[in-house]
Amino acid sequence: MISRIALDAMSGDHGPSVIIPAALQILAEIDDVQIIFVGDETVINQLIVGQPADIMQRLSIRHASQVIEMDDPPALALRNKRDSSMRVAINLVKQDEADACVSAGNTGALMATSRYVLKTLPGIDRPAIITAIPNSKYTSTHVLDLGANVDVSAEQLFQFAVMGSVLTNAVDNLSNPRIGLLNIGQEGIKGNEQVKEAAKLLTSSSSINYIGFVEGDDMFTGEVDVVVCDGFVGNVSLKTMEGVAKMISFYLKQSYNQNLWTKFAALVSLPVLNSLRKKIDPRRYNGASLLGLRGIVIKSHGGADQFSFAYAIREAIVEVQKNVPSQISHILATLLSERRHIE
Amino acid sequence: MISRIALDAMSGDHGPSVIIPAALQILAEIDDVQIIFVGDETVINQLIVGQPADIMQRLSIRHASQVIEMDDPPALALRNKRDSSMRVAINLVKQDEADACVSAGNTGALMATSRYVLKTLPGIDRPAIITAIPNSKYTSTHVLDLGANVDVSAEQLFQFAVMGSVLTNAVDNLSNPRIGLLNIGQEGIKGNEQVKEAAKLLTSSSSINYIGFVEGDDMFTGEVDVVVCDGFVGNVSLKTMEGVAKMISFYLKQSYNQNLWTKFAALVSLPVLNSLRKKIDPRRYNGASLLGLRGIVIKSHGGADQFSFAYAIREAIVEVQKNVPSQISHILATLLSERRHIE
Repeated sequence: MISRIALDAMSGDHGPSVIIPAALQILAEIDDVQIIFVGDETVINQLIVGQPADIMQRLSIRHASQVIEMDDPPALALRNKRDSSMRVAINLVKQDEADACVSAGNTGALMATSRYVLKTLPGIDRPAIITAIPNSKYTSTHVLDLGANVDVSAEQLFQFAVMGSVLTNAVDNLSNPRIGLLNIGQEGIKGNEQVKEAAKLLTSSSSINYIGFVEGDDMFTGEVDVVVCDGFVGNVSLKTMEGVAKMISFYLKQSYNQNLWTKFAALVSLPVLNSLRKKIDPRRYNGASLLGLRGIVIKSHGGADQFSFAYAIREAIVEVQKNVPSQISHILATLLSERRHIE
Repeated sequence: MISRIALDAMSGDHGPSVIIPAALQILAEIDDVQIIFVGDETVINQLIVGQPADIMQRLSIRHASQVIEMDDPPALALRNKRDSSMRVAINLVKQDEADACVSAGNTGALMATSRYVLKTLPGIDRPAIITAIPNSKYTSTHVLDLGANVDVSAEQLFQFAVMGSVLTNAVDNLSNPRIGLLNIGQEGIKGNEQVKEAAKLLTSSSSINYIGFVEGDDMFTGEVDVVVCDGFVGNVSLKTMEGVAKMISFYLKQSYNQNLWTKFAALVSLPVLNSLRKKIDPRRYNGASLLGLRGIVIKSHGGADQFSFAYAIREAIVEVQKNVPSQISHILATLLSERRHIE
């Protein structure tokens, strides 16, 4: 099966200069992929000259005259930039000219435009953002929502759990992913009402492997595959993770830079430090999914380099191959009819 | 001025075997401190035999027949364990026989008992838990609330900001601590109602150095001194921090253990790794404060060792010296009358 991926070529901090080389790399690497570059035709054409024929055959360009900036308010982007590269790329998914869209643009605008153009799946109130993070078991843990929904109901948390379960099953080939609800652990003051209520909904759902409450540190143990929370908590937690990793790396550099001996130690430790860097390289986890839409939309980090953006494209391809949206629809319908049956 | 510190000697994973040596260390280190050990008289007596006279003079024992377990529900602890070491230690603060209390016990029970016995300060709806965390500027950042309040109003976030400002001023000698409200950064979907409303309250308060919204990663940059959030978010963020640090340390160990060369690198790197460990050693940050009470209550980590518990006692001493509760009361009264004046 061919995967047709529309790329918002003008998006992110580096635009086409990163996105096009990343796409060419993927085209060279994977045969059954077609790429549609959406954006400024002239710029894109300059960046693809001289490619071999078998790659040129699998790429095309769709011109778009506008670009959504990182600080454009989503509502304005939606109203005033109907010919933006982001909007046109999402339209291609809607019109079934592409199977997925990847953008490194403004998250708010990407979410608003995707919802407006593609609509949510039946049974889904609002889409959620999910990403994978590393853990100590050398696997990965998926976390959602990461910022699309600051206030959520128990029912929405339940929907997030279903979507996270389907995605993790699809991309990690895990037959029965363990789902945890993020909570706080102090006795007697445990959790808010939504979380407690969502726990009940999940406990009574047959095809969800719900393992109970998990805490912030459990996200990194590899003992849970999908961590479900509201978008405020998820976003803060993800940023905390980035902040701590940056601080530790800063201190490590400082410590290795103290004197001649420590600089020698750094030299000797290079293979160790490179292996560590490789294990927790955030670029390998690039490509967050906007789940719950009638189509596949992947958000790349705005600052992604070529190596990193290629991961976001690979994420899109896997989700196309596994047809994640229709799987979500299917499983959600089963669970909801099961619940109605019980009631 | 003498600081009289009541210690819940039976608390934590290690009880008197850690708490008493930590206290004896503090008594040897600091002259103007008196310690009251609360707990099983016989056990405590065995652990203080042979101490020099000048230390014996500054310590005393208050017998308590019960112990609150780590998994005791707070309500039951409050009702059924009136002669627990925790309750008796807090009573000593209430009766002005001690200036502060330190416990490594069950957080929920400590919070419930402290509120019941000591009551909150005028103008404070609910107490909050605050701790210091390391940052890249070699200073520390205070974060509250860490789990006492899962649902908070804008007014409560405002109160947290005032309490955090006073505490940071007192313990870090910072004349005008920078206060940030924890939020998420995505355009258009920024924040929930409480956070937006709290921002307004803080912006219009003269004596609070409010610097605006901060995100999860900003907690570690040293560009903000006090980070204010609800207890759910704060707790998840703190646990995330612990989880990431543990994962990185695990990967570092693994990487250094791969083969003979990496083991040699580890040996050469020992001074570097020790210096790194020292910089982010969580034991140096032990001692969370229960702020907003009519008295000083410090919560030590349950698993604290002697080195770590001593930090919690030092935190209590500083707060006594600076009279943190009365400072909170005073500044809050000024701010509230100022606000009424504007309205």
